[in-house]
Amino acid sequence: MSKGLIVQKFGGSSVANVERIQNVAKRVASYKKNGYDVVVVVSALGDTTDELIELASQINTDPAKREMDMLLSTGEQISVALLAMAIHKLGLEAISFTGAQVGIITDTSHTRARIIKVNADKIREELRKGKIVIVAGFQGVTLSQDITTLGRGGSDLTAVALAKELLARECEIYTDVDGIYTTDPRIEPKAKKIPAITYDEMLEMASLGAQVMQARSIEVAKKFNVPIHVRSSFSNNSGTMIIKEVKRMEDVVVTGITINKNEAKITICNVPDRPGVAAKIFKELSENGVNVDMIVQNVSHTRSTDISFTVSKSDVHKTLKITKQVAKNIQSGEVLADEDIARVSVVGVGMKSHPGVAAKMFEVLAKNKINIEMISTSDISISCIIKKKFAETAVKSLHGKFGLGK
Amino acid sequence: MSKGLIVQKFGGSSVANVERIQNVAKRVASYKKNGYDVVVVVSALGDTTDELIELASQINTDPAKREMDMLLSTGEQISVALLAMAIHKLGLEAISFTGAQVGIITDTSHTRARIIKVNADKIREELRKGKIVIVAGFQGVTLSQDITTLGRGGSDLTAVALAKELLARECEIYTDVDGIYTTDPRIEPKAKKIPAITYDEMLEMASLGAQVMQARSIEVAKKFNVPIHVRSSFSNNSGTMIIKEVKRMEDVVVTGITINKNEAKITICNVPDRPGVAAKIFKELSENGVNVDMIVQNVSHTRSTDISFTVSKSDVHKTLKITKQVAKNIQSGEVLADEDIARVSVVGVGMKSHPGVAAKMFEVLAKNKINIEMISTSDISISCIIKKKFAETAVKSLHGKFGLGK
Repeated sequence: MSKGLIVQKFGGSSVANVERIQNVAKRVASYKKNGYDVVVVVSALGDTTDELIELASQINTDPAKREMDMLLSTGEQISVALLAMAIHKLGLEAISFTGAQVGIITDTSHTRARIIKVNADKIREELRKGKIVIVAGFQGVTLSQDITTLGRGGSDLTAVALAKELLARECEIYTDVDGIYTTDPRIEPKAKKIPAITYDEMLEMASLGAQVMQARSIEVAKKFNVPIHVRSSFSNNSGTMIIKEVKRMEDVVVTGITINKNEAKITICNVPDRPGVAAKIFKELSENGVNVDMIVQNVSHTRSTDISFTVSKSDVHKTLKITKQVAKNIQSGEVLADEDIARVSVVGVGMKSHPGVAAKMFEVLAKNKINIEMISTSDISISCIIKKKFAETAVKSLHGKFGLGK
Repeated sequence: MSKGLIVQKFGGSSVANVERIQNVAKRVASYKKNGYDVVVVVSALGDTTDELIELASQINTDPAKREMDMLLSTGEQISVALLAMAIHKLGLEAISFTGAQVGIITDTSHTRARIIKVNADKIREELRKGKIVIVAGFQGVTLSQDITTLGRGGSDLTAVALAKELLARECEIYTDVDGIYTTDPRIEPKAKKIPAITYDEMLEMASLGAQVMQARSIEVAKKFNVPIHVRSSFSNNSGTMIIKEVKRMEDVVVTGITINKNEAKITICNVPDRPGVAAKIFKELSENGVNVDMIVQNVSHTRSTDISFTVSKSDVHKTLKITKQVAKNIQSGEVLADEDIARVSVVGVGMKSHPGVAAKMFEVLAKNKINIEMISTSDISISCIIKKKFAETAVKSLHGKFGLGK
């Protein structure tokens, strides 16, 4: 009698070489031997995907997305075959499948396809035979049999979708860190691993710079209430559970502090203060694929105001080009870009019921003589844009003041 | 109006790097621009297949064949995607497909599957849209959607099968040599490119050591009368046509001389001269997967005889083990192996109607004081096993005597 089904996802760094593949095989085998049914989702080996992208770019700087998917999907196909061989070597039965073979049906948006449905009959059939089933992450197939890929973090999405479809008791996400920390341990050595975190908190953490899991997979897990366990493929320690509700021993207000140095601040000076102007700017950016994050517009004292917003550093060039054009059309003033910034955020569902978190945050920053350039808040997070050079100090002080190192 | 359909197959060396892929794209595009419909079959880039085999062997020395096929089929998938991108770059429409996607249905003999049928509707559909269709060579899919590979020379087979199914006017096999030569030009610089050769002659040439095309694909081409054009991917010169019947200007008796240094001679001494003994030996070898080539048994003067045969050098160890055991059982004498041999053959449909070719061959060898150790003949070929050190001399003298350098 099976103890139930576990879906395990191993990222590229977990299968970067032969030895690591063998380690993954051992871990998977230990679960099977302990009485679990196991479905394994694997990413491409190490840097394979980046290498294939580089190879494509040498041939065509603007490759057709359908062909990119054809190319990139080979990475995971290699991984699943090798992992099956490694598990066989340990004397267990295992079978590998591509996304297409197990019926991960997607729409036709190549390179960032969305899963429409998962037809997991083939997986169920092989599980019934007692086999470990290995599925290529990151990929699917359209109804007309074209291979698609799911975009960044796609293997996590494959794992979560399979866990949902197969009613798995848990979806384990193996990575090169051993869980979610109260903040980046490279900045604050006192950072602690968080044993359990809610989907909502994790979503804030993810979108605010914690690189462990993409927001997309967490959203799907939240929607279908799939319990996720983020843990290290290099140790047996338990990691962080991502679940619906966390019953914490004591009243935790702030769960974590995140830091993001990958954004730039754009400011349009002297924007005429009349309806529709902001819409014009952000519509233009959105249509050009620029993802705008924080937006701040102050009350105007004269008949014009300044609008500031943040974008990913990689979009600065494009953003400036578009924004300068729009600024000219709407007769605004100068457009400035500042890449020398960092975003520091405090996150926690506890702050819903605890006022004063923002005040405390501002106070900590003020005490450290750190000027706040922009502020943005959500239900469960408060973010401040500050000068980059103060980022580490800010994180450490906030981490201490909110009692996260205890 | 299309001038008709050409199937073009490019081997691994033709797509070994970005520059070569671009050259293939240019050639394919030139055909399309000249009014042909084109279906392209591509092998894996350069040494990709060997690298994947090596990677697998590090994980499992006896990998499951289904998983090997899963692994190896990625090589061609990478090639087709990259070639499509390269053709797009030239402004033409192209679309890539895996073997599974275009319906190359095979049996379930993984790593050496046989094509059962080709359902080319998808290719026809894309050709009708004016696209260049690129198909991954070497691979197919079983009826239950498992990926298979077709074994050595499998991409040639894919090309020939598609040419047959699509009623192509020609199947071009692009390789790193510019055609079939009267003999190996590295041995005899006077060797001449043969403009046209029959399927039967090519089959003899192929099985006798000319490495350009596998016998299997030529057999299929012969069966369905698919005209093949073997030519170089590095030049625009026409190569060698392989067709049903060659109308030659003058009476050609011998078409080519082949040489094969990859065989060893095994001799079983003093085999009891009674019925069923030879059967016992060769049945045992065949059941163990040893491919026996030439077999010679002399009339016995006493109540025992010697039996000699040749096998691939890579099989010598296994062959000796099996043969020694059988020899013991049937009370034969010593078993000897000689790897220091070469097989030299003369091939030509002309010899059917011209007696005396064998005599002339033996005479040439005798004049050069080359001892013949074994002789074997077919309808259109005569082969002699000689000491390896005489191989080059034999080839050159025969090439000259049969007038092939003219």
